[in-house]
Amino acid sequence: MTTGYALLTPGGKLEPWTFPRRDLRDDDVRIRITYCGVCHSDLDAIEHATEVLVPGHEFTGEVLAVGPAVTALAVGDPVAVGNIVDSCGVCAACLDEEETYCLEFPTLTYGGVDRVDGTPRYGAYSREMVVRDRFVYPLPDGLDPAGVAPLMCAGVTVWQPLNRLGVGPGTRVGVVGLGGLGHLAVKFAKALGASVAVFTTSSAKAPLALELGADEVVVSTSDDDMASHAHAFDVIIDTASAPHDITPYVLTLDFDGTICMLGIPPRYDVDSMALLRGRRRLTASGSAGVRDTREMLAFAGRHGITADVEVLPAARVQEALDRLARNEARWRFVLDLSLR
Amino acid sequence: MTTGYALLTPGGKLEPWTFPRRDLRDDDVRIRITYCGVCHSDLDAIEHATEVLVPGHEFTGEVLAVGPAVTALAVGDPVAVGNIVDSCGVCAACLDEEETYCLEFPTLTYGGVDRVDGTPRYGAYSREMVVRDRFVYPLPDGLDPAGVAPLMCAGVTVWQPLNRLGVGPGTRVGVVGLGGLGHLAVKFAKALGASVAVFTTSSAKAPLALELGADEVVVSTSDDDMASHAHAFDVIIDTASAPHDITPYVLTLDFDGTICMLGIPPRYDVDSMALLRGRRRLTASGSAGVRDTREMLAFAGRHGITADVEVLPAARVQEALDRLARNEARWRFVLDLSLR
Repeated sequence: MTTGYALLTPGGKLEPWTFPRRDLRDDDVRIRITYCGVCHSDLDAIEHATEVLVPGHEFTGEVLAVGPAVTALAVGDPVAVGNIVDSCGVCAACLDEEETYCLEFPTLTYGGVDRVDGTPRYGAYSREMVVRDRFVYPLPDGLDPAGVAPLMCAGVTVWQPLNRLGVGPGTRVGVVGLGGLGHLAVKFAKALGASVAVFTTSSAKAPLALELGADEVVVSTSDDDMASHAHAFDVIIDTASAPHDITPYVLTLDFDGTICMLGIPPRYDVDSMALLRGRRRLTASGSAGVRDTREMLAFAGRHGITADVEVLPAARVQEALDRLARNEARWRFVLDLSLR
Repeated sequence: MTTGYALLTPGGKLEPWTFPRRDLRDDDVRIRITYCGVCHSDLDAIEHATEVLVPGHEFTGEVLAVGPAVTALAVGDPVAVGNIVDSCGVCAACLDEEETYCLEFPTLTYGGVDRVDGTPRYGAYSREMVVRDRFVYPLPDGLDPAGVAPLMCAGVTVWQPLNRLGVGPGTRVGVVGLGGLGHLAVKFAKALGASVAVFTTSSAKAPLALELGADEVVVSTSDDDMASHAHAFDVIIDTASAPHDITPYVLTLDFDGTICMLGIPPRYDVDSMALLRGRRRLTASGSAGVRDTREMLAFAGRHGITADVEVLPAARVQEALDRLARNEARWRFVLDLSLR
């Protein structure tokens, strides 16, 4: 049994809950969770929940026990886990360590059911979790575990397109939306050697963006500011979760530039001439598989990248969620699950 | 003065018309037009015309005279011209020979006005034309001039994304829409070494597609056929001009695959998960600049590629337009302007 914070009644508040974790299978790892990030998608899941829900899918902790087939991890190891905890393991995507695209759909850290025994998956707003070893990553040396927790979802979600789109020295990157994902996009893009601009709806966030390392701020509500940045970027990472017209951002892409959407409205749509008149590209991605996660952690370790977090005792989870909903995170709330 | 076929009354039919061509400027070439392709965009231009219109923007002919600064072409040279006849020449796009993206917008072969003297641009459904030398291309040796004419718009429009997206041996290409553009996409993609499938709405066009060199035909109205081609393609060239939901085609792209739209509805839109769950890309392009056109003609010359055309005397221009509107082109009508 473990204890955690669950939405027991749809529409209600999170409350303490005690529930079982499965016995270890051969390739399982039991983890004592220390820190768990509070992700915007947790809010969405809570809003749409129809069953008992324990959120939490970006966490760090310590190995409590391992199954007999586990060789890469040992009791006491500091570890990190993201939003995928299992997958078929045999499809082309899994063999390529791109488990996000598992043809049988990956098993998510919470929501859905375990693919072996069919029990509901409860997340990491809890004291302990059991995860298949393949999806448990050693914590990079020298990084603050509280700041690493958000790397496991927010971090790898922005790392993946930056890396895939070849962002490096000389690349001009624009980041739409300064929040959990956006602030990490700035950090990773800068560490990759790119120049980085942050789009904000108001100039009030400008000092915060510059503090994070951004080279400049573009006020997206200013037609002049937007017009003066036509063709200014090679890659735009759009982290805004609210539906919005991407056409004005697309027009700031240079020829052959790419905008990558990380938010998920029902449809992506864009003015056709904005795409065509610059031969620009629209793509999207979400989360990432084992290979990208491993590479992201290695890169974060080398460059000392962690999320900027405000750590709250787990008992204040509802406060974290409420403040996140009011956009008060600077830039990620993290729950401390080690506190009783 | 030259003679041609013009829409003199909006909503009417094309009729013979005599009109002036400008005197040669230093860098001008006077061309006697022999063949001009009938493009789907001519139909659109005629439908939306509010002023006198002479269509035609893909043609071949012979140099009649050159301005004093023209050195690369001489009287009697067989030549070809596409849908761009001038541009600013000094912006980054023009310096890169990507005149489609000229920051001052390129001067089109018809529609709009000459950028030097402000006179209306009349197109190539006519006996003669005057064009700045930079946009006049030598006809490749050994190719039928009637079949080259459609390469200058339809051909380069499909060549450009195939080339830019790196289509070559091993690439799996899907072509949406079998018509003037689509049939050339099949020919170019095959000559580049790709395997090519044609999407058709009915199996009736299947034999025609295979005859053109396609390796297979996918019936897009068959859910089974579409489902069995999930993740089957690396690149899709969508040449369909009528608005349509691209989501079913996007789902046939493999991971990181790209769909390139050549039609121009007001917006491009796609189901977000179809894009995200395969990290697929949506892009668009139209026409091409000097560099792509030169490379396309060289490639067509090496591989003996021309459009499949039905040549009609220019006097039957209205018949060609009417039959094109009924999708009866196999695959491009070409007007013979040499006939009186």
